[in-house]
Amino acid sequence: MPQPIPIIGGTGALGYGLAVRWARVGQPVVIGSREAGRAEEAADRVRAEVDDAEVEGHENDEAATKGPIVFLTVPFRAQSETLTNLKEALSAGQLLVDATVPIAAAVSGRATRTLGVWQGSAAQQAAEMVPEGVTVISAMHSVSAPRLSSQDELDEDVLVCGERKADKARVAKLIEQIPGLRAVNAGSLEMARIVETLTPMLISINTRYKSHAGVKITNLPNGDHWA
Amino acid sequence: MPQPIPIIGGTGALGYGLAVRWARVGQPVVIGSREAGRAEEAADRVRAEVDDAEVEGHENDEAATKGPIVFLTVPFRAQSETLTNLKEALSAGQLLVDATVPIAAAVSGRATRTLGVWQGSAAQQAAEMVPEGVTVISAMHSVSAPRLSSQDELDEDVLVCGERKADKARVAKLIEQIPGLRAVNAGSLEMARIVETLTPMLISINTRYKSHAGVKITNLPNGDHWA
Repeated sequence: MPQPIPIIGGTGALGYGLAVRWARVGQPVVIGSREAGRAEEAADRVRAEVDDAEVEGHENDEAATKGPIVFLTVPFRAQSETLTNLKEALSAGQLLVDATVPIAAAVSGRATRTLGVWQGSAAQQAAEMVPEGVTVISAMHSVSAPRLSSQDELDEDVLVCGERKADKARVAKLIEQIPGLRAVNAGSLEMARIVETLTPMLISINTRYKSHAGVKITNLPNGDHWA
Repeated sequence: MPQPIPIIGGTGALGYGLAVRWARVGQPVVIGSREAGRAEEAADRVRAEVDDAEVEGHENDEAATKGPIVFLTVPFRAQSETLTNLKEALSAGQLLVDATVPIAAAVSGRATRTLGVWQGSAAQQAAEMVPEGVTVISAMHSVSAPRLSSQDELDEDVLVCGERKADKARVAKLIEQIPGLRAVNAGSLEMARIVETLTPMLISINTRYKSHAGVKITNLPNGDHWA
């Protein structure tokens, strides 16, 4: 039996899209929200979209205890507060997959610009805030949330940053359960400084092409990098 | 008759690779170097590789006068000095295509890290330094120089940043002369802050995959954006 994937902020577009995609392939998910009622309502929507979906809705702190690899998909404005609230919920040995993008829109700036985060990136801020023994992996910035929530076939890459390949491989395995997504090892956690900025770059492209663009890394060798 | 493309720093790996690719499709190029002798030697190498190549070698300042769209492919360490030396050579109406990446390796740091450039990006530094009436476009950061110099077939994108679409379209036309390269409009010149960091991201990926990776933007609409 696969273990459930908690998605903190799972009522938002990115988190909800992930929940639906995983539900479709039979992967259990737990949607977290600040309010249990909204989480349950989102879980109902997933069940309405996907027959036999294994999905629950809970308050964030309860959701965070439900699986070994927790996805964090809240807006940057809420990232720090959410992590403070999860201090008691997260426990040593868990992986936290941070998808936060510090776009300037968080403080009424442009969505094509980023804010400077003191630690270097939102993921590094997360790494500073999680309880000891929790490992932060950075991923899922460049996949269009509307596209993820749609019926469209995907064919793009997810760049994964983190200190240890073994941890990244566990996250890659979950990402690659979703048909059309390939997880690419982009290096250590500090590379999130760059990878997080792919989102505003794609937003800039999207305004010009009226698209929901993603990214693919070309010319990688064949074979499973994560095996 | 197509007008020649001056490549400042054309003896380096990226500039030389561009020269060879353009020469193969019959596009005249002018290789610039600090020393005329090295430029001529690089031009000889292009001619040895490509029959009937239309290629000349000149000192940078002379090369810069030879065509309306000038490519700048020097290392970051040399960018500012090169632009100072070109102040008399460049003239109003020209486009300068800046490919500079401010990697920390320029000051003995890591190639997976960038330096903070006061103006925000190397391209914006270039825009501050060029003579009045010269327009800077930022492009060509993510194409592997060794791959460009090789016989390999290319299949990747070049992200192009600049203020006016009409200027970017002129540059795109030159880039897309090279088989396998597509020019993607990444937005205004300030987006170079992000696009320039694709290089260290790809370097990080390359160390893990032993690859010469590039980037492709997925899910753009069909049709010629530049037409």
